[in-house]
Amino acid sequence: MIDSLIDKIEALQNPTVVGLDPRLSFVPEHIKKEAYEAYGKTPKAASGAFLRFNQEIIDAVHDLVPAVKPQIAMYEQYGAEGIQAYIDTIQYAKKKGLIIIGDIKRSDIASTAEAYADGHIGEVKIEEKSYTIYQEDTITLNPYLGSDSIEPYLGHCKNYSKGLFILVKTSNPNSGEIQDLEIEGKKLYERIGKMVDTWGKDLVGERGYSAIGAVVGATHPQQAAELRRIMPKTYFLVPGYGAQGATAKDLKNYFNKDGLGAIINSSRGIIAAHQKDLYKNQYKEKEFALAARAAVLDMKEDLQQIF
Amino acid sequence: MIDSLIDKIEALQNPTVVGLDPRLSFVPEHIKKEAYEAYGKTPKAASGAFLRFNQEIIDAVHDLVPAVKPQIAMYEQYGAEGIQAYIDTIQYAKKKGLIIIGDIKRSDIASTAEAYADGHIGEVKIEEKSYTIYQEDTITLNPYLGSDSIEPYLGHCKNYSKGLFILVKTSNPNSGEIQDLEIEGKKLYERIGKMVDTWGKDLVGERGYSAIGAVVGATHPQQAAELRRIMPKTYFLVPGYGAQGATAKDLKNYFNKDGLGAIINSSRGIIAAHQKDLYKNQYKEKEFALAARAAVLDMKEDLQQIF
Repeated sequence: MIDSLIDKIEALQNPTVVGLDPRLSFVPEHIKKEAYEAYGKTPKAASGAFLRFNQEIIDAVHDLVPAVKPQIAMYEQYGAEGIQAYIDTIQYAKKKGLIIIGDIKRSDIASTAEAYADGHIGEVKIEEKSYTIYQEDTITLNPYLGSDSIEPYLGHCKNYSKGLFILVKTSNPNSGEIQDLEIEGKKLYERIGKMVDTWGKDLVGERGYSAIGAVVGATHPQQAAELRRIMPKTYFLVPGYGAQGATAKDLKNYFNKDGLGAIINSSRGIIAAHQKDLYKNQYKEKEFALAARAAVLDMKEDLQQIF
Repeated sequence: MIDSLIDKIEALQNPTVVGLDPRLSFVPEHIKKEAYEAYGKTPKAASGAFLRFNQEIIDAVHDLVPAVKPQIAMYEQYGAEGIQAYIDTIQYAKKKGLIIIGDIKRSDIASTAEAYADGHIGEVKIEEKSYTIYQEDTITLNPYLGSDSIEPYLGHCKNYSKGLFILVKTSNPNSGEIQDLEIEGKKLYERIGKMVDTWGKDLVGERGYSAIGAVVGATHPQQAAELRRIMPKTYFLVPGYGAQGATAKDLKNYFNKDGLGAIINSSRGIIAAHQKDLYKNQYKEKEFALAARAAVLDMKEDLQQIF
């Protein structure tokens, strides 16, 4: 997984991840109208509108970026039909050659974690038959329960060539309340960074990076420098660029000297670009996917400043 | 929410929660056979078998316990059809008068947490229409991201009379790796206990307990005593009784002197009772629901020792 991700980042010269976090307010009227005409103003219509919206975005950006990151909450809120749209989005993006980062942030005790691991990055067995259900390539997890809550996923990463990004230092304003607490002179997020480094030791790929990555918010460049030292072989998934306020010049610390080590996510900044002043004069609402493509190209250019 | 829960606990003289964490290995052959004949050995069949299994258990125990706790991972692993079985299980249990604790352990930044909160304990809006999707009465959450990740749910608890149980000290063997770290002489779980107490201050019901509860594993009786002092108005959801090794004598510390303050979950010990030596001579496999009822009555008797 991690080697394919790095190969794609290098081939495209772009460490951008497009966050597929749709909201009805982002979806153009013509897509919503068609969905409502078919299914009424229902969760099924909303889910169908999300899928079509995502498909057009994926069509417009799949040759520019290595990966997409669907946020499962946006789909899960609509129930079973929402979950189906999440799965269908993943299928569509995979067919277009994209790597899938499932932003699920799950956490549970080992016996329960096994069920999440089977469904998301392994296979579920029904008697002699096996099914791969969600088919993400890598997923985000929350570490608060400790090693035994992560271990079932580590086994699957080995057996199914999958990856993880574990929450270390998140991008939200109150992330410090717990994550920055000091333990014997070190911050909790540093301690967890070391744990992630350890969990990833047996899963280092040919390019020197582990399949077990870390989530480190773009809003914490100083902490990123420390974490980069603690976790030299860990890939960072970096949310918070754009809408959450971080800019390219904040991002240098997230990368290693080889120019690798981080992927930068943007969600709203790309998928809702057609609603931003910068793009809405150039693109009609129906051209939302072209606006997304333009936003990806602008972000790529912006990120060049890092190196 | 919390007042109704307490009223039911008192009326039934039973603080037991039945964990609805089905696995195919727990489901009797005749139910699986019927599901496979209708749908093949598919995720749809597995989900249908779970629903029927749960319905019979609910029928057999709904007059004995105040609440059930479906674990969403067991359903989510089967995709959209699994999620539908989770939702249908909740609907069925609600009709039988049970309080629903959705064991979802979600965690995310505020803008994403809003989507989880809308879907699980609020309503999703599709233009002028509103839908209540999952309809749990209360859900479990992971606090690692801090206050702003919890706030969207607090608003919904007020507006929709719902509740939360926030992970403080979990029941798994490695829970201490992060949760027991020492910060200025106090353990992290104590710090989080204080945060939960604060989050719950505006949501205290008529009986003196808050709608914002805490998850405190049954495997940590000493820590429970400290937490009971730190969080006098917080209801504890206590997993780990039975299959995870805790017994009734370990549970005294989880309760206040009023005999309230904790609900004790058992999953496998009840829903897979028909496979335990204690019950399998008395009940045929087809009588799995009667075995579950017997296990609930035995657990109720066991818990009487606490007081």
